[in-house]
Amino acid sequence: MLFKNITVIDENYEAQEHLNVVTEGKKITYIGKEMPENYNGEIYDGNNKVAMPGFFNIHCHVPMTLIRGYGEGLPLHRWLTERMFPFEALLTPEDMYWGSLLGMAEMIASGAVSFTDMYMEMDGISKAVEEAGMKANLSHGCSAFSDDVHFTDINGYKGIHYLMDYVKNANHDRIIGDASLHAEYTSTETLVREIAEFAKENHLHMHTHISETQKEHNECKQRRGGLTPIQFFNKCGVFDVPATAAHCVWIEGEDFDIMAQKGVTACHCPSSNLKLGSGIAPVKKMLEKGIRVGIGTDGAASNNNLNSLEEVNLASILQKGANNDPLFLGPKQLLELACRNGALSQGRADCGSIKMGNRADIVIYDLDKPHLQPVFDVLSNIMYSAQSNDICLSMIDGNIVYKNGVFTDIDLEKVMFHANRIKEEKLAQLK
Amino acid sequence: MLFKNITVIDENYEAQEHLNVVTEGKKITYIGKEMPENYNGEIYDGNNKVAMPGFFNIHCHVPMTLIRGYGEGLPLHRWLTERMFPFEALLTPEDMYWGSLLGMAEMIASGAVSFTDMYMEMDGISKAVEEAGMKANLSHGCSAFSDDVHFTDINGYKGIHYLMDYVKNANHDRIIGDASLHAEYTSTETLVREIAEFAKENHLHMHTHISETQKEHNECKQRRGGLTPIQFFNKCGVFDVPATAAHCVWIEGEDFDIMAQKGVTACHCPSSNLKLGSGIAPVKKMLEKGIRVGIGTDGAASNNNLNSLEEVNLASILQKGANNDPLFLGPKQLLELACRNGALSQGRADCGSIKMGNRADIVIYDLDKPHLQPVFDVLSNIMYSAQSNDICLSMIDGNIVYKNGVFTDIDLEKVMFHANRIKEEKLAQLK
Repeated sequence: MLFKNITVIDENYEAQEHLNVVTEGKKITYIGKEMPENYNGEIYDGNNKVAMPGFFNIHCHVPMTLIRGYGEGLPLHRWLTERMFPFEALLTPEDMYWGSLLGMAEMIASGAVSFTDMYMEMDGISKAVEEAGMKANLSHGCSAFSDDVHFTDINGYKGIHYLMDYVKNANHDRIIGDASLHAEYTSTETLVREIAEFAKENHLHMHTHISETQKEHNECKQRRGGLTPIQFFNKCGVFDVPATAAHCVWIEGEDFDIMAQKGVTACHCPSSNLKLGSGIAPVKKMLEKGIRVGIGTDGAASNNNLNSLEEVNLASILQKGANNDPLFLGPKQLLELACRNGALSQGRADCGSIKMGNRADIVIYDLDKPHLQPVFDVLSNIMYSAQSNDICLSMIDGNIVYKNGVFTDIDLEKVMFHANRIKEEKLAQLK
Repeated sequence: MLFKNITVIDENYEAQEHLNVVTEGKKITYIGKEMPENYNGEIYDGNNKVAMPGFFNIHCHVPMTLIRGYGEGLPLHRWLTERMFPFEALLTPEDMYWGSLLGMAEMIASGAVSFTDMYMEMDGISKAVEEAGMKANLSHGCSAFSDDVHFTDINGYKGIHYLMDYVKNANHDRIIGDASLHAEYTSTETLVREIAEFAKENHLHMHTHISETQKEHNECKQRRGGLTPIQFFNKCGVFDVPATAAHCVWIEGEDFDIMAQKGVTACHCPSSNLKLGSGIAPVKKMLEKGIRVGIGTDGAASNNNLNSLEEVNLASILQKGANNDPLFLGPKQLLELACRNGALSQGRADCGSIKMGNRADIVIYDLDKPHLQPVFDVLSNIMYSAQSNDICLSMIDGNIVYKNGVFTDIDLEKVMFHANRIKEEKLAQLK
């Protein structure tokens, strides 16, 4: 594909006008002012369009789109015990498949090319990712509440082996299997140590929730002899592999140093943290301490959407406001978090920016909209004013997965039909 | 118009399925399960659609859409003195006209039916509002820096008379002329007292900025013998007429009681307050104290968009997060702020909800989108997941102003052309 005469947000996240970009196979093979020589493939007219790197949504529970808005307005404990847990307990692998397709449709349409996910039923989810064409680091969230329970006893053990086999047999590297501990408060020291060891042996990345609420953070310290979740996990070897720690709202003191030293990526989830009343993560301090920070939507049950563009915009203005600093986390730095840092956290070093030799993960925005005019600053307009609907094409690993509102490999009518069917069936079962 | 078999968000902001709604002239004349008798007008199929009340965006500077993103990344003082002020000084009434149309296109497309505005050049702005079909409370922001300057000396005096004449001669009540003081820090006591008196004599509403930044709030106390902006304005009689006070981020102590007693509406502008690093307004305390609170986008120079739907969503999650209370400001209460409170602040008692006898200000959302499925809770899905593009029709005072992406009375191509022409011309002049 040749994107002809288009504005490109380049590898330094700066806008460059009137460039030509060629993709071949999975990669970007040419970027330049001149037209490429001897090109005779498909041509995309870039007039009034912007080629942006795709977002990496590094914390999600994609099938939870099936539960969007269920129990809205209930207090947290009742919402979990009366709505979430009973509903989730009924979900089959096939339900996960449909829920994942629904969630990926939303992510792709809002500029994401890859996501990091933690849930259950890896077969249903990986089948959906395979079909939809996204990249994903998938994991089965592990938990245990008794020291007698070992990693080999729980579903997560089968889940990670399913993923490891899947990756070995796939003819692409879009799907990566990660190890996962759900959280400190749902783990025993036995489980934590066993999974940490397993991840290390098998060279897996780790995905977990860290210090999302003040309550959970403080209770950990009581439970673990004064250690915070970061300190406890670190003691157990969890961070001996590259890890993504979602939320990190309440991390403190030595936590910052451990995360920086161990190369733990913090995933900032502003919508979820605000909507659940959890707080505002100390992103500025994390960056100052040298911690890699990325951005995630969390699941649709607590957001209530998977709109990556909205999440990235919110991360910027929320952090400006919380730090009383209008110059913090401007468009360039924001893209570094949302794209490059996200890609690095997933172990995808050749992703996250539009650059010769990188993967062709390109999202095209149409500037011909009232809310994107006039254009003094292309990147500012996109980061602060663009909406999902301004995205007219999304390419992942060189494949067009979405164009002018239509998904190449997601049958949206069918997916929405099944999402509603699943809702009706589960509600009937729960009565 | 008959909206047939549609889900209606009713006057209590609750979803009611399978209703029929009839509008005649400017009003809603029928809402019911049964089909209306002897109806033979136009019919709109409400299948999978939701009829929502339109938003009232009660703080804006609509022509500033012309300056969207200009000077992004500069510190506040340099942004104002090197970019905003020089550019604004070049704007003509005709420029204001085009900028207002551009801004209204954005507002209408994102669910707003009315706005409260403060700027300059009332002729250009009112002409645009007249044509676009929105409702607006317009005002010319007044300021003076010397006690020798009287209200009769400044442009705002001509501005408000222009509006008063306009309203008198118009054959509709969509446009209302408000009095306006820009802010305490741009006013002398002479000016404040004269404008307060003028507003009282002429039964005008008042629009002003209050305690947006901590600096401005504290400097006021030094300047005005310990009085806050609210206290100083109150002493001068500003709140003897119904007033809208934008921002109110730093109000304190007695300010809350004065606002409640005097019926001052606080306009919460979350995007602008975050993006400029001003802080987070104490909305929960204001509501507890009985203050009427509405929601506004502020101008596009500091937001950088006029997306009402996004603003309303942000107001909810930001206030949940800031108050550590996931149950605060849920969808129902949020609509009361964004619709009814906004309408009341503008002096439009028959607006702000879908109710027999009220004005026909109806915005239709299409639920047939991946990010709005499945539907457990219609209102939650719209308030937390809907995007501008889900709006398929907007009716203001019974007139369809927008349908399926097309504006009835705004020529979008022409407006965007002129917005860019103005940008190029001003930049050339500034060189």
